[in-house]
Amino acid sequence: MANEKKFRVLIDMDGVLCDWEPTFLKTYKEKWPGRPFIPLEERKEFLVRNDYKNQLGIINPNEVYEKEGWFLNLPPVKGAVEAFEYLNSRDDIEVVICSAPITNYNFCVTEKYQWVEKYLGKKAVSQLMLTKDKTIVRGDLLIDDKPLIKGLDSPSWFHALFTAAHNTWFCDYSSNQRRMDSWDIKWLDEFIADLKTRSKN
Amino acid sequence: MANEKKFRVLIDMDGVLCDWEPTFLKTYKEKWPGRPFIPLEERKEFLVRNDYKNQLGIINPNEVYEKEGWFLNLPPVKGAVEAFEYLNSRDDIEVVICSAPITNYNFCVTEKYQWVEKYLGKKAVSQLMLTKDKTIVRGDLLIDDKPLIKGLDSPSWFHALFTAAHNTWFCDYSSNQRRMDSWDIKWLDEFIADLKTRSKN
Repeated sequence: MANEKKFRVLIDMDGVLCDWEPTFLKTYKEKWPGRPFIPLEERKEFLVRNDYKNQLGIINPNEVYEKEGWFLNLPPVKGAVEAFEYLNSRDDIEVVICSAPITNYNFCVTEKYQWVEKYLGKKAVSQLMLTKDKTIVRGDLLIDDKPLIKGLDSPSWFHALFTAAHNTWFCDYSSNQRRMDSWDIKWLDEFIADLKTRSKN
Repeated sequence: MANEKKFRVLIDMDGVLCDWEPTFLKTYKEKWPGRPFIPLEERKEFLVRNDYKNQLGIINPNEVYEKEGWFLNLPPVKGAVEAFEYLNSRDDIEVVICSAPITNYNFCVTEKYQWVEKYLGKKAVSQLMLTKDKTIVRGDLLIDDKPLIKGLDSPSWFHALFTAAHNTWFCDYSSNQRRMDSWDIKWLDEFIADLKTRSKN
């Protein structure tokens, strides 16, 4: 149907489009060889610096991701670029890239724009939104690796919890939440079809 | 009432919090003394570069606002900082700063964060959202100097058209739009009270 309302997918960057966790650990080990570190399978907290503080008493892992070039040089998550392009190409879908910058924003915010331009193309830059609060953004589906997303509103979107090292333990899903293990287009097709059916009922 | 839903005000930056138009003209004249310019009272288009192209055949006025330091050094609009602090201090109101970066984002995006920190304080940085599309953000009131705000959705907010040099000609208001001439707290109080009453009816 020509005028049917489009299905809006909001996509997070760190841990979803950009391969944050493995790159953090690799860079951390290169920066501080021999220093204690947390293996990926032992990550627990959404914020890596909370894990390093709680588990190891290390308070400066943020030096890794507050450095110039960090955000721009994150490699894409496997299949993320292809999946973004696929969703973007569908006539029945609208895509918004929805990312929360870190508090020390100096390199982060510009590099998030540069990353989108570099990997997803110049046109995709206009699809980028930076916000600390994703609950006030209207959409049908948010793909995000943060287990508990809080903000000013009750979200309008369903939340696909994208698997990342820090959230593998999480299994207490709410009624508008389920896990998404990787960028698998067939799985995504079926998932979106299912969400569309639900919203009609 | 303790649990009453708060009234959410979205506030634009350029032309609303930041004094864009007069600063542009001043900087343009300093950069190109003797070159033709458009007096503030003859501005017509939302984008200054469209006016300069259409009226004067000048294609590079963007050099003024794409330069490092431009966004950070914009002075606040008269009364804007006080009004922001006032709205932020009200228990019944939530404030989100909602700004669309320019296409050449290199200095713009970081400097918007820096501007907010400089004039509105470190805490206000978390209230900043950058997006090209404001229609998908949920709120009760958007204060913005752009006459026609388009995007993926029908907006949830009422639009207060903040007076700026480029929009003085505009008078074809829609039913969810009215003009706001300046940051006048008494006027704003009455306006918000009126919008609250409407949403209850």
